[in-house]
Amino acid sequence: MIPFKLTDDLIAEIEQLIEDQKDTELSSLLEDIHYADIAEIINELNDDEATYLIKLLDSDKTSDILTELDEDIREAILGNLSAKEIAEELDELDTDDAADIVGELPKDMVQRVISELEDKEHAKDIVDLLRYDENSAGGLMAKELVKVNENWNVLTCVKEMRAQAENVTRVHSIYVVDDEEKLKGRLSLKDLLTTSTKTHIKDIYIPKVDYVNVNEKPEEVAKIMSKYDLEAIPVVDEIGRLVGRITIDDIVDVIKEEAEKDYQMAAGISQDVEADDSIWELTKARLPWLFIGMMGGIGAASIINVFQGAFVTFPILLAFIPLMQATAGNVGVQSSAIVVQGLANDSIKGEIWGRLLKELILGLVNGLALAFIFLLISHFGFKTSYMVSFTVGIALVTVIVNAALIGTFVPIFLNKRGIDPAIATGPFITTSNDVLGILIYFSIAKVLLNF
Amino acid sequence: MIPFKLTDDLIAEIEQLIEDQKDTELSSLLEDIHYADIAEIINELNDDEATYLIKLLDSDKTSDILTELDEDIREAILGNLSAKEIAEELDELDTDDAADIVGELPKDMVQRVISELEDKEHAKDIVDLLRYDENSAGGLMAKELVKVNENWNVLTCVKEMRAQAENVTRVHSIYVVDDEEKLKGRLSLKDLLTTSTKTHIKDIYIPKVDYVNVNEKPEEVAKIMSKYDLEAIPVVDEIGRLVGRITIDDIVDVIKEEAEKDYQMAAGISQDVEADDSIWELTKARLPWLFIGMMGGIGAASIINVFQGAFVTFPILLAFIPLMQATAGNVGVQSSAIVVQGLANDSIKGEIWGRLLKELILGLVNGLALAFIFLLISHFGFKTSYMVSFTVGIALVTVIVNAALIGTFVPIFLNKRGIDPAIATGPFITTSNDVLGILIYFSIAKVLLNF
Repeated sequence: MIPFKLTDDLIAEIEQLIEDQKDTELSSLLEDIHYADIAEIINELNDDEATYLIKLLDSDKTSDILTELDEDIREAILGNLSAKEIAEELDELDTDDAADIVGELPKDMVQRVISELEDKEHAKDIVDLLRYDENSAGGLMAKELVKVNENWNVLTCVKEMRAQAENVTRVHSIYVVDDEEKLKGRLSLKDLLTTSTKTHIKDIYIPKVDYVNVNEKPEEVAKIMSKYDLEAIPVVDEIGRLVGRITIDDIVDVIKEEAEKDYQMAAGISQDVEADDSIWELTKARLPWLFIGMMGGIGAASIINVFQGAFVTFPILLAFIPLMQATAGNVGVQSSAIVVQGLANDSIKGEIWGRLLKELILGLVNGLALAFIFLLISHFGFKTSYMVSFTVGIALVTVIVNAALIGTFVPIFLNKRGIDPAIATGPFITTSNDVLGILIYFSIAKVLLNF
Repeated sequence: MIPFKLTDDLIAEIEQLIEDQKDTELSSLLEDIHYADIAEIINELNDDEATYLIKLLDSDKTSDILTELDEDIREAILGNLSAKEIAEELDELDTDDAADIVGELPKDMVQRVISELEDKEHAKDIVDLLRYDENSAGGLMAKELVKVNENWNVLTCVKEMRAQAENVTRVHSIYVVDDEEKLKGRLSLKDLLTTSTKTHIKDIYIPKVDYVNVNEKPEEVAKIMSKYDLEAIPVVDEIGRLVGRITIDDIVDVIKEEAEKDYQMAAGISQDVEADDSIWELTKARLPWLFIGMMGGIGAASIINVFQGAFVTFPILLAFIPLMQATAGNVGVQSSAIVVQGLANDSIKGEIWGRLLKELILGLVNGLALAFIFLLISHFGFKTSYMVSFTVGIALVTVIVNAALIGTFVPIFLNKRGIDPAIATGPFITTSNDVLGILIYFSIAKVLLNF
């Protein structure tokens, strides 16, 4: 496949065609481009140009484009469309994508758009989906699925399935429910086709079926689907009724978003921002963490001030402040990151004492190794006195062990409290470790060197 | 679904049953447990217990278990199996999973295992796959797929498809090739079923089909499949012949591994380690980065030593070393992380000057905001002289701008050189920024305060 390449030339060409209102040229230029690629193009246009394109193209294509756009551009475009125009887009979409878009509309618009929807069944499904928390299996699922009643015979089943499959892009599985809509199992297409048409479904279905509850967290759904290599999973409500289905493409998005969020948190970026966001958006996401870091720096300054006595007698101690700080920060982040990933993979199951003991040993091993190297360097490089060198060495080991323990404890603690442990890898803990590292350093130096 | 929960009790029970060699109890206990869950259990056992279970259970289940195990346990188990036993496992697996396992075997074992394989076609496919680089589309793909010749008619096509589909767990798509095996397009099942049996495939197939080249990087394949919401993609060789197929479950693994790798790199962990790895493994992954950090700290100590003059006249300057260091580190990581994600999403397209300008402005905005707050705090809190306060403030802005520029430049530069830009978010750049930050700080202070 020759991959689509978004170039400045292509954007300029499209902008020119829009300005000249050359609709035929535009349509034919965009005809062979995939909707996901057109979305990338539109993300680069201004709001008026974007709206112009959406109004120009067919709604079977524009509906898909809308789902792929950046949220701010989509909002701007939808703001330029009438309730009827929006409803036309939604009519083309699966219920989950349609509900996501409706969820972004201003309150007064929702009612009007819904009432303009042509397919009343579709409208009802979309309204149903609006009730679920965005951050749950219910918020992810679509209503499109193929289900059959256990009391039907094969003939009825095939007939009904055919009608249902019309609305379902990818069938994946046929789910079996009872008269109360409760999920009973699934059906293999092969069994269905090789059985007499009078056989009842209840005699041939497979009762073993993976499913998730409608209130399950998206991360949990992702974990289950990826662990068991599922391409689709049915969703049931509190009393076991089949209410929807989640497909793997949505889960891929969940996994990617989750990973981006953790990564940004570790890097000290508090909002979901992208490289091409405005300077204002980027500042909002970055400045708070820098401010926390600065407070840490000022805290460290206060600590250093307290230990002024050392400035005169052992000025060399001050030179090793960056060493203590960097080491404490690095060790803390390493420890936290391993715990955060362990929690995400379920490979850590809350056994906090065992983990702390392990980190203690690990900290000692790493700390002694680094302290040994340090002693060599300080002896030959800085020609510091043995007393000072040993003081710094002992402080180094203590700081490392301490940072390892804090880095391990905090994410486990946050996780138990129901807070995302990934926060612990961000600047907040690094900063605390920095400051604490300096405090430990000077305290040990004060005791050992007696200044 | 009641999710499977791995408990210490369950492990203890299984270990006891193994010790007592109660095979029937073991088999019935494990019968209803999913292979991915059994793999989790086996990951907790010692090598002998693990081998015992693998030898006990049926190879249609153990083959799947093997693919899910941690690499070190799998290696230990395979070391305890004969060539014939390993071949029996491989016979049950899809070609991609089988090839992955063969790839891990010792060289002298490969030949023997391959010759023990029962299905010669399967053996040939596995051998074919072994030639591809693990880190390419060829290394990910399976040979199992459904393909039809464009010159066949519908009747032949349906007959052939049925035979092929036997070996394919999930069909996804029917691919159309010409006499030279070149990929021409795909076939809709619906069209196939609603067309006269004498129609030739070449008259009904859809020529538009997404595909990837066998040498494509897994990350690229992941990007394409997730962007276009594909559940499977065909793989072609250099001259366009259809050679395999990649399914979304493998891509989910690629996305997760990629995210874990980036996250660990940002946290300064150099190897793929997990929380339950040995202290030795963890030390190997962590110590190198701590060592780099320590070298940075020692570099910083040398710089501070050079500026000893300040120690006497402006001791308060020393107190703000941690502030400079932490801020430089934090800004650098933020900038790098945004660039790294932008590169991963293709939202940054190499336009380096524009990005640097943006970061310059962003650095100035953030820097001036922080410097302003700093001036207030230092005036009221530390009662430093105006001259010193302004010096620190100016240094702070300079350090922030500098770190933002370096944090932006380095990942773009690495990426152009074909090096994974995520390295830039790790301790290496943080450390460089730390040291450079301190150098800038003291240089500015020396000029402005003239010590």
